[in-house]
Amino acid sequence: MTTAHTTPLEPTGTTRGNAPLGVAMIGYAFMGKAHSNAWRNVASYFDVPAFEQKVLVGRDPAGVAEAATKYGWAETATDWRAVIDRDDIQIVDICAPGWMHAEIAIAALEAGKHVLLEKPLANTLAEAEAMTAAAQAARAQGVQSMVGFNYRRVPALALAKELIAEGRLGTVRHVRAAYLQDWLADETAPMTWRLKKETAGSGALGDIASHAIDQVLFLLGDQVTEVSGRTHTFTTHRPGASGLEEVTVDDAAWATLSLASGAIASVEVSRVATGQKNSLKLEVYGEKGSLLFDLENLNELGFLDATVPVREQGFRRILVNEPEHPYLEAWWPQGHIIGWEHTFTHEIRDFLLAIDSGTGPSPSFEDGLAVQRILDAVEESAAAKSSIVQLAGRLAGTPFKTAPSEGA
Amino acid sequence: MTTAHTTPLEPTGTTRGNAPLGVAMIGYAFMGKAHSNAWRNVASYFDVPAFEQKVLVGRDPAGVAEAATKYGWAETATDWRAVIDRDDIQIVDICAPGWMHAEIAIAALEAGKHVLLEKPLANTLAEAEAMTAAAQAARAQGVQSMVGFNYRRVPALALAKELIAEGRLGTVRHVRAAYLQDWLADETAPMTWRLKKETAGSGALGDIASHAIDQVLFLLGDQVTEVSGRTHTFTTHRPGASGLEEVTVDDAAWATLSLASGAIASVEVSRVATGQKNSLKLEVYGEKGSLLFDLENLNELGFLDATVPVREQGFRRILVNEPEHPYLEAWWPQGHIIGWEHTFTHEIRDFLLAIDSGTGPSPSFEDGLAVQRILDAVEESAAAKSSIVQLAGRLAGTPFKTAPSEGA
Amino acid sequence: MTTAHTTPLEPTGTTRGNAPLGVAMIGYAFMGKAHSNAWRNVASYFDVPAFEQKVLVGRDPAGVAEAATKYGWAETATDWRAVIDRDDIQIVDICAPGWMHAEIAIAALEAGKHVLLEKPLANTLAEAEAMTAAAQAARAQGVQSMVGFNYRRVPALALAKELIAEGRLGTVRHVRAAYLQDWLADETAPMTWRLKKETAGSGALGDIASHAIDQVLFLLGDQVTEVSGRTHTFTTHRPGASGLEEVTVDDAAWATLSLASGAIASVEVSRVATGQKNSLKLEVYGEKGSLLFDLENLNELGFLDATVPVREQGFRRILVNEPEHPYLEAWWPQGHIIGWEHTFTHEIRDFLLAIDSGTGPSPSFEDGLAVQRILDAVEESAAAKSSIVQLAGRLAGTPFKTAPSEGA
Amino acid sequence: MTTAHTTPLEPTGTTRGNAPLGVAMIGYAFMGKAHSNAWRNVASYFDVPAFEQKVLVGRDPAGVAEAATKYGWAETATDWRAVIDRDDIQIVDICAPGWMHAEIAIAALEAGKHVLLEKPLANTLAEAEAMTAAAQAARAQGVQSMVGFNYRRVPALALAKELIAEGRLGTVRHVRAAYLQDWLADETAPMTWRLKKETAGSGALGDIASHAIDQVLFLLGDQVTEVSGRTHTFTTHRPGASGLEEVTVDDAAWATLSLASGAIASVEVSRVATGQKNSLKLEVYGEKGSLLFDLENLNELGFLDATVPVREQGFRRILVNEPEHPYLEAWWPQGHIIGWEHTFTHEIRDFLLAIDSGTGPSPSFEDGLAVQRILDAVEESAAAKSSIVQLAGRLAGTPFKTAPSEGA
Repeated sequence: MTTAHTTPLEPTGTTRGNAPLGVAMIGYAFMGKAHSNAWRNVASYFDVPAFEQKVLVGRDPAGVAEAATKYGWAETATDWRAVIDRDDIQIVDICAPGWMHAEIAIAALEAGKHVLLEKPLANTLAEAEAMTAAAQAARAQGVQSMVGFNYRRVPALALAKELIAEGRLGTVRHVRAAYLQDWLADETAPMTWRLKKETAGSGALGDIASHAIDQVLFLLGDQVTEVSGRTHTFTTHRPGASGLEEVTVDDAAWATLSLASGAIASVEVSRVATGQKNSLKLEVYGEKGSLLFDLENLNELGFLDATVPVREQGFRRILVNEPEHPYLEAWWPQGHIIGWEHTFTHEIRDFLLAIDSGTGPSPSFEDGLAVQRILDAVEESAAAKSSIVQLAGRLAGTPFKTAPSEGA
Repeated sequence: MTTAHTTPLEPTGTTRGNAPLGVAMIGYAFMGKAHSNAWRNVASYFDVPAFEQKVLVGRDPAGVAEAATKYGWAETATDWRAVIDRDDIQIVDICAPGWMHAEIAIAALEAGKHVLLEKPLANTLAEAEAMTAAAQAARAQGVQSMVGFNYRRVPALALAKELIAEGRLGTVRHVRAAYLQDWLADETAPMTWRLKKETAGSGALGDIASHAIDQVLFLLGDQVTEVSGRTHTFTTHRPGASGLEEVTVDDAAWATLSLASGAIASVEVSRVATGQKNSLKLEVYGEKGSLLFDLENLNELGFLDATVPVREQGFRRILVNEPEHPYLEAWWPQGHIIGWEHTFTHEIRDFLLAIDSGTGPSPSFEDGLAVQRILDAVEESAAAKSSIVQLAGRLAGTPFKTAPSEGA
Repeated sequence: MTTAHTTPLEPTGTTRGNAPLGVAMIGYAFMGKAHSNAWRNVASYFDVPAFEQKVLVGRDPAGVAEAATKYGWAETATDWRAVIDRDDIQIVDICAPGWMHAEIAIAALEAGKHVLLEKPLANTLAEAEAMTAAAQAARAQGVQSMVGFNYRRVPALALAKELIAEGRLGTVRHVRAAYLQDWLADETAPMTWRLKKETAGSGALGDIASHAIDQVLFLLGDQVTEVSGRTHTFTTHRPGASGLEEVTVDDAAWATLSLASGAIASVEVSRVATGQKNSLKLEVYGEKGSLLFDLENLNELGFLDATVPVREQGFRRILVNEPEHPYLEAWWPQGHIIGWEHTFTHEIRDFLLAIDSGTGPSPSFEDGLAVQRILDAVEESAAAKSSIVQLAGRLAGTPFKTAPSEGA
Repeated sequence: MTTAHTTPLEPTGTTRGNAPLGVAMIGYAFMGKAHSNAWRNVASYFDVPAFEQKVLVGRDPAGVAEAATKYGWAETATDWRAVIDRDDIQIVDICAPGWMHAEIAIAALEAGKHVLLEKPLANTLAEAEAMTAAAQAARAQGVQSMVGFNYRRVPALALAKELIAEGRLGTVRHVRAAYLQDWLADETAPMTWRLKKETAGSGALGDIASHAIDQVLFLLGDQVTEVSGRTHTFTTHRPGASGLEEVTVDDAAWATLSLASGAIASVEVSRVATGQKNSLKLEVYGEKGSLLFDLENLNELGFLDATVPVREQGFRRILVNEPEHPYLEAWWPQGHIIGWEHTFTHEIRDFLLAIDSGTGPSPSFEDGLAVQRILDAVEESAAAKSSIVQLAGRLAGTPFKTAPSEGA
């Protein structure tokens, strides 16, 4: 980080006798900024293998240069293919738009690079399947891959998963998952690539229902067997470069999911929920207890233990900021809350540890594919008057196994 | 209320030169207790026409006598038919179970008695239609009827309706309505008549989704055109008098409703949402603002006004306890919250005022029928793999017109 | 309640072979309305000795007649002395302004009537002492008395007391008690008798700090030994009948109280806390747990149990609406909240049971006197630059003993 | 950050033609970790003058070397005096314990280095006065200094200040400031240097009341004229190296402050408030509006605007995460909350901008001295039975002037 220093700095992280891992990142918009923050800081808090923020890749030379300087990357490049071929690159972090995911990820995996890929896995199911096959082939060669459902690394949600896995809720009966935003509430907000099916795949469904559905699978460690769905576009035309243009993706979506365990989850997402800024709300109702969560207060978990006497039952607001909580020992003293961006810091910590230990990181591309199949089924159902679509034979979700490094 | 007094008490309420209205109430369980509370207190707070709590009707002579003494009824009877024929009875308040609604209500209306009927209107759609026909015929004779969706008289919800009607939310895009309870979360809780289709009609659907759906219709003043639904029974057998018996109604239900205006409402209800005691949650998202409500904090309304500068936007917690708020002028100084039971006090106040003014009270039997049709469509859709059911030709819901007396 | 009925109603409550107790109430403003509500309803929910709402007393014959009709009193009177002498009156409920308390209460006690007296006990310490002496003398004759600190009967606070008494908080270290209102926030709000020392005694101090201080004594069952205090009047003149008049009481007050146990309580009250409507906030911090309460959400109690593992600690929102909670078995199913007015219903229930059992009801006049001495010491300290005032020798507060009937 | 890279990285920040500022930091415990985080990240989000994280100073060579590697410092040193004399160091960031503040800060300022100093200014008033004199002398030479009351840079509190300064609350009448923690609730928690007067100066008072008092001064832009105070130590002995040792600082403190404007603030702090982890609670009550804040939810501000119609008044939860909010444009899209650590990122951003523009940064050492005088007066009052202490002639607090760069 400095031009002149007397004591050469170690590469970030702990080398453990190996050469540091070279990291290349592709894309430097919102997700690139967030991932860079994680790469820049992860080794200041966690004991991770040594790595170097080597190359930032983007199409615009000036833009990528400015971003590299701000975000701590040593070099820049404009051709991702050339970077993937470099011997000093062991990790490729893909923050490019969804329609580029398949091509880059498959190429990187085939080149033997560990891949961290932003969610959703892909814009289409066919792409997602091809990517998963590539990930499976690479894994057999010791090349790891991970899809970036970063909310699995919210400490409160990692704690939620622990409590469920420990049986504190008993049998889970139903889940309410909603992800509500309002950035499209203004009907005069302009057309963007996110509102076109050809570039975005879908709207709120792929963008935020993917997170909500991944949480259902993550928290319950379960699989979806049936889906009924519905999508809607409230504002069908928006001002574009050439006048009003048609919005070809959904503003909001609703679904019910049957899970193999017998649980049922409702999912509701919206980009027009005025006043809800980034509210991923999760409610899990079990026989012996329940959990509540809202991403706008991500340092908190609501927990009701129905096994204590009725007289003293109530939802507890656990401020998930104690050394006893997942990931928190690395941070600040109790009550000093952490920000949204550290979901990525934790994600990259776990990704690095998985590479180091040779364990497949979670969530895998298979997990990403499972979400994709469910999203696809929601669209299929929506096109068929919400009639239930079976996912049997193409089970969506994998029984959860905690990797040893995760959340510890 | 006293055996000996020197100044004979006036009948409750204001006579305005007329003889006091004689009231008979049928049923004295949970709802009978709540309605009695309202009759006993309404005239202490509101200026209503004079009435007398004349007769309490129940099948068990000892039980009804004890209830009458506790709840302030002058007489008791065991035969509701005889009571309906009495000349000194002008109002029949029906708190009997749903399967008795049709027979009693139709008889009472035909006998020329004003009828207040607990929700839901009936256990079957056929009954509901017959009752509505009877109510229409009676209305032509000046005989009024009202279905007891008491939550229309929660001051916070009456305020919500005012704000929506004034356009403070702009076009409403979607509504999230949930009614969550947990009294069946314990799988060993015993069998009751509420868990048998033949006595209860349905489970959470008829009991609490009816409230949630009525609120959607009430708040938006809109009609439902399409329904997709799903129901589920998590605990299929429960201990009864003769061993394990089958539960033949739903524990939980989910639906999406399309409204004539283009809005979409999601509805989710459960009796196994551990830790949620009586939580009717309503969220209304409009173009210019939003509203939040939870029955467990019924004195509060959340309101976000998206027309103020973004810098100072946020959901306000309005403590609906000011004289400026619906019904509140009658009660206590600001900040002294009122209880759930006064939703009935307000309901009976509005019912009495409607009778006095000869205006049809709201919600009418037509409103009850509209809810019934939607519930029926939810079941129909649930039986057809959640496939959307059209309600065209049998529109469910009536455009809202505020009666002059309501909530003022 | 009716002019004609065939089955004469029993007096309210259970006679248990005795003649019903005759009740006279003096005053029919805010507190009279609230007490009447309690008398009118208590026997509908609780098993109490039989009583009759015999006489309502007020100075204005027309006003008192109207109030009696609305509130359910059989007769009216304008001379409280004559009523106190009546043989058919056994209970006198004093809701008259504070400056009349001493005269009426002493006369009633001397006449052998059980007395329920609104708080604060009196406007001056001298009066409070005389009243307490009268109460002690009467008690020796089996005549009971009670001061109306109604918030002792908020179910959530009764539960709080139970938890503290059971040792769930361990040693209590400090308490934060605040009572915040805003009805004087508008500096143009007019002069009233409440803002004159000669009629009101003090301002926020006597009116609402009395409640806050009583809660400290009640919850901890402790005594105050030292007081430092401060008072302030933000708006010193307000428009009266003859132009601007001087406000001679406090708008706000602050105090710290040392308790005999070693605990320290802070007290802060205000009538100009804009946006706080009726917010009595209590926070009790113990070695093993803590409690939170806010009167604006009086059906809830926050409880943190610090003996559970840190990982799952958090303040629970207990919805105090279960049959297991104090007073709640009498009311509605879980989650159906009750209103502020039923603090009085519970108070009168306990008062009646205490009379019936011959046990001195709590809080006694001694308890009221203890609060008065503390208020007096706050004013004394405020006048002496906040310097600590010792209460030794005049200990303020009595060790709490739960009467058998209370809160059960 | 890398050992080998082809495109040499720019120093962090923007050079604007100047050599980058060399930064030395002294101390690497809790505050050193937090400040390092800010130095490491500030230039990734904000446009600041170029600087280099040159030297980390600590007494233990191994410890400081490990910290430097983790936290991104190029070199290490063990002798702060030698570092202060280096020509390539322009900024000294002092995170050493309070008893070392005076010596280091005065030496650094005299050596012509800009100084950022953690709060509180010093352990004694005499030290604080000497430091302030040194800062004034240095400022005349263009050498800047700032005391690290980092909560002035919580976006929600910066917004609060803006709203107050714009008159949105009208005249502020009273403030409730509390800072509640519970890390000493366990009476067996061990002795530390923080619990000894000779090392820590005071307990909760200097550590956290300093923050609460600074906020009162900051938000109101006012001065304190009078103080009444009280302190208490609940656990007087704790296990140390040689058995039970005496705790010689306070566990909790209470004060009331009179402000020059006529407002009154209450301050209450505790380290034994079981269940409160890091809860700095601020409530500001004005004639036309009010504000609420809690550091445990630092992305939120409660705001009540009493100028809107009563019917729709209520405290708004403003999620302070919009580009329109102070500091937020640099971060993430709306609703993606930031963590506690970025109070330091914002502080260092403002410090760098002030150096760049030659403007004295805020809060100055004078501001730190003002807080110190108030803390001193609290102790003086506590020692004199809480009797009010005048601060006239030694006015504590300076009228607030917004530096052009601050919070913009």
